[in-house]
Formats: sequence, C-alpha cells, structure tokens
Amino acid sequence: MFNQLAQRYFGELDATMRQIVASVPETPGLGVMLRYPFGWVDQNNQPYHQITGKRIRPLLLLLCTEAAGGDWRTALSAASAVEILHNFSLIHDDIQDNSPIRHGRPTVWEIWGHANAINAGDALFGLAYCALEELSNVGVTPEVTLEAWRIFNQTVQELTRGQHLDMRFETLEVVSVDDYLSMIRGKSAALVAASAQIGALIGTGSSQTAQLYADFGLNLGLAFQIRDDILGIWGNPDVTGKSVATDIISRKKSLPVLYGLAQSDTLLTLYRRDEFNEEDVDEAVSLLNALSAHTYAENIEARYYERAIQALQHADSPGQAAAGQLMQFVETLFQRSY
Amino acid sequence: MFNQLAQRYFGELDATMRQIVASVPETPGLGVMLRYPFGWVDQNNQPYHQITGKRIRPLLLLLCTEAAGGDWRTALSAASAVEILHNFSLIHDDIQDNSPIRHGRPTVWEIWGHANAINAGDALFGLAYCALEELSNVGVTPEVTLEAWRIFNQTVQELTRGQHLDMRFETLEVVSVDDYLSMIRGKSAALVAASAQIGALIGTGSSQTAQLYADFGLNLGLAFQIRDDILGIWGNPDVTGKSVATDIISRKKSLPVLYGLAQSDTLLTLYRRDEFNEEDVDEAVSLLNALSAHTYAENIEARYYERAIQALQHADSPGQAAAGQLMQFVETLFQRSY
Repeated sequence: MFNQLAQRYFGELDATMRQIVASVPETPGLGVMLRYPFGWVDQNNQPYHQITGKRIRPLLLLLCTEAAGGDWRTALSAASAVEILHNFSLIHDDIQDNSPIRHGRPTVWEIWGHANAINAGDALFGLAYCALEELSNVGVTPEVTLEAWRIFNQTVQELTRGQHLDMRFETLEVVSVDDYLSMIRGKSAALVAASAQIGALIGTGSSQTAQLYADFGLNLGLAFQIRDDILGIWGNPDVTGKSVATDIISRKKSLPVLYGLAQSDTLLTLYRRDEFNEEDVDEAVSLLNALSAHTYAENIEARYYERAIQALQHADSPGQAAAGQLMQFVETLFQRSY
Repeated sequence: MFNQLAQRYFGELDATMRQIVASVPETPGLGVMLRYPFGWVDQNNQPYHQITGKRIRPLLLLLCTEAAGGDWRTALSAASAVEILHNFSLIHDDIQDNSPIRHGRPTVWEIWGHANAINAGDALFGLAYCALEELSNVGVTPEVTLEAWRIFNQTVQELTRGQHLDMRFETLEVVSVDDYLSMIRGKSAALVAASAQIGALIGTGSSQTAQLYADFGLNLGLAFQIRDDILGIWGNPDVTGKSVATDIISRKKSLPVLYGLAQSDTLLTLYRRDEFNEEDVDEAVSLLNALSAHTYAENIEARYYERAIQALQHADSPGQAAAGQLMQFVETLFQRSY
C-alpha cells in the first residue's frame, strides 16, 4: 500500500518541495543546509539521492484530500508545508537532544554547528509557511487558505508545547500517564492531525468534515506514538533497525516505562542510577514484563486506534477509492511487527 | 515625538501582545519563558513592570496605518506580530552569539539553557503568525490578510538569510561592502520594511501604496543600522549607554571597519590578533579616523536616509496628521547624538 501511494504522490511532492526550498535566494553556504535534511544533497552540496524519512505526513495529507473528494495536486504545497515543518522540528530537536545521527547521517548541528543549525531550522520553519501560502495561488479560496493557516498556527503551538513538556519530563523523576499523553498529543500527534485536517479541508472546503479528519489524525498519531514506545522496548531489532530495548538503554520515559515506574519501587530505584549496564537493562525489561506493561500500552494504543477508525468512518468520504486506500494505509502503518 | 506616540499606542499594543501570548495553553514552565522577554515578568514569573526595547517596529507599523488613511486599532495584531517576531529573533540571536545579557537582564538561554531557549524562540515565532492571522477577525479582508502574510513570509526568509550571512562573515577575514549591505538588508532592514508595508497595507488596502512604504522602511532600516554602526565606534557613551568603541573591542565587522580593512593593511594586520588590548583599540580608531571612515559611513547613511524620505513623500498619505508625525518620528530616530 505504502509503495503504491508513494508511486502516485512522491514524484510531484518531491518536485514541489524542491521548488519551495529553491525559492530561497542563493546565499553562500545556506542552501546546502536547507537541502541536506531532505536527502537531496550531501554535506558538500553534491547530489545525494536517498530521500530521508517516510514522508508519512504529506502522504496522509494528500490521501485525505482525495478521500474528501478533492484533487490531490491542489494540496501539494500544503503537503510540502507539513513535511518542511516536520524537518524544521527535527533539526531543532537534534540540537536539543544532542543527537549526532538522523536517518543514518550526521545531523545538521553535527556538521555545521549549533548556531547554523538553529538558523537553518528557522529558515525551514519560515519556508513551511511560504509553502502553505502557495495554496492561494492554485485555486484554493482565500477563506480555505486562511483556515489552513489557522490550523497550521495551532499546530505549531502544540508542537512547541509538546517539545517543552518532553524536555521538562527529562528533569522529573515522576511523570503521570495523563501528562505523558498530553505531551505526545503536542509533540507527535498534532502534526498528524493537522495533515489529515488540512488535506480534507482542501478536498472538501467543509470545516466540519475536516474536523472529523482531524479527530482521526489526532488519535492515529497518538496510537502511532504508543506503538513506537512499545517497539522501543520489545521491538525486533531486525525490523525496527534499532538495538534491543533501545528506549530502556536511553532511559526514555515512554508510556510502558511510566506505567512501570508508577507500579514498582524496584524499577524506580533502578532508574535512579547514573548509568545502566546490560544487566540493568535486562532487569528493567523483566520488571516491565512482570507488570504486563506491554499489554497495558497495547490496550491504550488500541483505544486510540479504534477512535481514529471511528472518526474516519463518520467522515464524509466521497472519494471512495482513496478512502479505501486510506483505511489500508492506516492498517499498514500498524503492521510494523515485533 | 516618541513619547507622544508611545502614549497613544503603547497601552493597547501591550494589552494586545499580552492577550496573544496568554493564548498559549497554560503549561508548567513555558509561559514564563514567553512573557519574560517582553519585560512583563521576572525569571521567577513575578510581575516586572519594565517594558523591554523601544518597540520601534510596531510603533512604525501603527503610524503607517494611520498615515495611509486607516484606523490604527485595526492593525494592533499585526503590530504585535512584528514585535513578537523581533523578540523570537533576539532569543535565537543571543544563543548564537553566546550573549548573556539583553536589555540589562540575563538572556533566556542564560536562565533556562540552550534547549529551552530554542523552543521558547520557536513558540514566539509561531505566536507571531497567530497574531498576524488575527487580522481576519477584526474586519480586514481575507485578501489583505493573505497579502500581509505573504509579506511576513518573505520577511522571515530575509531575516534568516541575513542572520546566516552575519554568522558567516565572522568566519571570513574580508567582507565586501556590498555583501555587508546585503546582510543588514536581511537582518536589520527587512522587518522595518515589513512593518511600514503591512501597516500601510492595512490602512489603505492598496498594494501599490504599501510598496512605497516598504521602500521607505527598507531604506530607513538600512540608514538606521549604519547609524548604529557609527555610534558603535564614535558614539558618546553617556548617550548610547555603551562603552567607547564597543564595536572595535568586539571586533565587529561593521561598515566603517570593513571600509578601513579594505584600505589599510595595518588595520588588517591588527585585526588578525587574537585579542585586543586598550592600545590596539585606540590604534584601530586612529586608523579609521585617518581614513575618514566616519564620513564614509555617514555618506552612505545619508544616501539611504534621503531615499527613505523620498519614498515616503511619493506615497499616498491621506492621514495628514499622522504623516506629519511619521516624518517627525523618523527625524527623532536619527537624533541619537555622538
């Protein structure tokens, strides 16, 4: 399913994104930092043809435009906007987390330093808005363009709120599940929600229909993040491409861990250690298994997943073929196995 | 003049800005970082009544709305947008420059660290767009709102381009005057231009008239930055509030210095030193004086200043009282003495 959609959309999507990024006036040393994150060039500004990331958000946006009865080509600049915004947030995230690697390549700050990476992120942030503004030049009404902008603005607020909470949680020993869910709602789910909502809005022009797609996207984003949390502990390294229990090693406060910390003083004591050795990791996983933290997280994931599907079923989807593909695509997203 | 305008506008401007920043959902630890830069609270989130900065950009915007024949109250959210955007850029600038002090107070990163300061800047960046979007809720047409957004987007691109060049120039020994002027066009003048342009656009609805105001603002911003460069070397510390020759001590590549470096190998050799002592500073100033670098910079400043005035005189200004005040305000801006 993913490949079929990629084949339909990715050529024109990539061309649109390249055009938007190329609209920045040629400035020595700046363009390469803006093209590098998308996998278009290497750090020496030489062609590099390995697109980074799965581009799930723009794909979802275009599919929702079609499902809501519109022409996906009308939505290409909006699809570019959400992917560019996502890349801005990754560049700043990587500075904040001190992460040297992203998509198997050195991160922007690792190559060009913190100051340049902050500015490259800011430039992409602004470019995301430039991309969205293009809607008004491809036949979308001023009213719908303004509505898409309003959604985008709210999403940016959610992203920065979620990022703030994520960083804050690192400094706290105890984080409640409710606070955690509020954090991932902003950091992970908001942009998925906006992608579905803006896509549907462009497809139909109806704010009401678009709101149902937003509900779908929000719950999908939450379920997807929790699936990620589960895979970060129990995922099969051959499938996830990460080492076993990677989130335990980094002591990430993901949902299963927070559940475990609230139940087990032994785990809490373990998590107070400055460093984890291999045995500590094994012990933490054993403790979580004994508490059925895996099942606990799966149940919450399933709850959000069902809500997502229900919202989608209630939404008006005159583009029946695309609506069917959208449902299949969602299923594919959750087939990442253990 | 400044006080008269401040009295007219600042009460409602401040109220609008506070309302916009307060629209961020209450999140532990985030709100204080967003209110602190404006001087509304101290770092412990306690009331602090000392407004930071002169708020020249929003003042200019509101005055241009009036001069162009409109009601300045309609433009309050746009005026807030340019001031919030300015503050976002200062927060990121201070991280990039490693500056611990701004407006006599510790900078955001100095208090809350780099990661939080990046995110607080991003949140204000997004809030600036939220503020601008409010135009559509106060009777401004969708078309004018979209046009204001387009101008804002271009301005953000100019800001990040200018910031990139400014950081790049620090790593170069030789920077041409043309490259320098291109840098300050982005980093300093673009937002002044946008303030005048968006203000006039809201006041008149005419893109053509607004473009003349943009020309006025751009040239004003360039002249103003060059005046700043002159004051940074020859300014009277009692007036500027800075020490003598502050830009020489920090070896800032400002316009008079670039002119000097291009003329004098002695100055170039001096600037290659790792550190400057007091005698080096005196020698650098003497070399610049011998080259009449002061007059050189003043001539360029005067050229931009005249262009600014000419653009303003060509613009349609049915709000005659405000237009007169705008001219007086511009004169006031350049009365910062040596």
